[in-house]
Amino acid sequence: MKGKIFVVGTGPGFEEYLSLRAIEVLKECDVVVGYKTYIALIEKLIEGKEIVSSGMRREVERCAMVLEIAESGKNVCLISSGDSGVYGMAGVVLEMVDKAQNGIEVEIVPGITSALSSASLAGAPLMNDFAVVSLSDLMTPWEIIEKRTEKAAEGDFVICVYNPKSKERVEQIRIFVDIVLRHRSPQTPVAIVRNAMRDEAAVTHTTLSEMLEHTIDMTTTLIIGNSQTYYSNGKMITPRGYKI
Amino acid sequence: MKGKIFVVGTGPGFEEYLSLRAIEVLKECDVVVGYKTYIALIEKLIEGKEIVSSGMRREVERCAMVLEIAESGKNVCLISSGDSGVYGMAGVVLEMVDKAQNGIEVEIVPGITSALSSASLAGAPLMNDFAVVSLSDLMTPWEIIEKRTEKAAEGDFVICVYNPKSKERVEQIRIFVDIVLRHRSPQTPVAIVRNAMRDEAAVTHTTLSEMLEHTIDMTTTLIIGNSQTYYSNGKMITPRGYKI
Repeated sequence: MKGKIFVVGTGPGFEEYLSLRAIEVLKECDVVVGYKTYIALIEKLIEGKEIVSSGMRREVERCAMVLEIAESGKNVCLISSGDSGVYGMAGVVLEMVDKAQNGIEVEIVPGITSALSSASLAGAPLMNDFAVVSLSDLMTPWEIIEKRTEKAAEGDFVICVYNPKSKERVEQIRIFVDIVLRHRSPQTPVAIVRNAMRDEAAVTHTTLSEMLEHTIDMTTTLIIGNSQTYYSNGKMITPRGYKI
Repeated sequence: MKGKIFVVGTGPGFEEYLSLRAIEVLKECDVVVGYKTYIALIEKLIEGKEIVSSGMRREVERCAMVLEIAESGKNVCLISSGDSGVYGMAGVVLEMVDKAQNGIEVEIVPGITSALSSASLAGAPLMNDFAVVSLSDLMTPWEIIEKRTEKAAEGDFVICVYNPKSKERVEQIRIFVDIVLRHRSPQTPVAIVRNAMRDEAAVTHTTLSEMLEHTIDMTTTLIIGNSQTYYSNGKMITPRGYKI
């Protein structure tokens, strides 16, 4: 009998923000597969399991391995931080299972993606419509990312930015800020959230015109306020519209 | 000594998708406040607690009560389903605490919002940039919602729609579909997800031109694919761009 594949989002940080369903499938599965940094974050939870950890940028290889493990009759969890359904492994797994026509069952276990964990640390910036944009142009052409940035800015969406910058990608965030500045005040509140819910978690409250003066890296999620967003008492708030 | 306020997102469904942190604060607090439907979903978890449940559309009143309870020295959890930071109570609480200048500490405990839980049931539609739009014009002027719909459609964002329709609001979803159809194929995949992770959970896979023929109500979240989204083996997939 074939095993089942669980694609599990482990949320931000350590075990604390996993769901009970995620914990249940991690405890009941035979094998856990994941990028080594994510495995390390939840190692207490999967003690004694067969663990297959791998380096970054081996996504397709990692998924192929997961399929093989399930084919061999073992139940396997493929983990990633946040929600594996948001820029994550869920899509690749479903595409590969579909292509292989092997009838293997897949359950996507949702998790708390970093837009949500970062927002909760920044205050309440997502009280109104928002857009989530990744600035990584490894797999999405840069023109499309630019266009989406422009449209999100024009629509006055709160904008959550994933993958704003890496060691090799440093220019994209500058272009992003220039585009948003064409439609939004330089004083627009911006939260820079690094390592949400981990030991080194840090929230910087700044503005659209000054945000590039602060550290932004691979562990960072940015939240750009809309035209109504304000700071109050150290918290970033987008009003919902209630009369208070 | 004043109590602390926890604004807790309980995720979709029952206890299964709560985070450990949410469970911890629910167990340790003195009082739980929430809309009665949400209280009922997690009643096992809060057995024996002082519970204050209320009807819908009493948001400001409910928050004022929460502040009073904390003032009296009790730790209090204000709960809502999904993520209380997404169109939820987090903003109102922070605004009221700020206005009252009472120095009460607030922790926003993030949860799995319905865009994520619905996506996990539909397949993997959020593998690329997405926008979250609420069609409720109770507090956001309809022109703004129309404009955001237009911009999200122009930007080829996957669009997650909250509050698509209620007994009184039936026309908004028709206008929404008309706007998106100006920019996207009638065959664009659409997932209609009702009661995600609850007993009556149902996913309907349809298209932009046919979606209005299906039941859409207050328990529904819609996911509109982008130009790349497709159906495969009963799953809705937005490719991330990996070569498989």
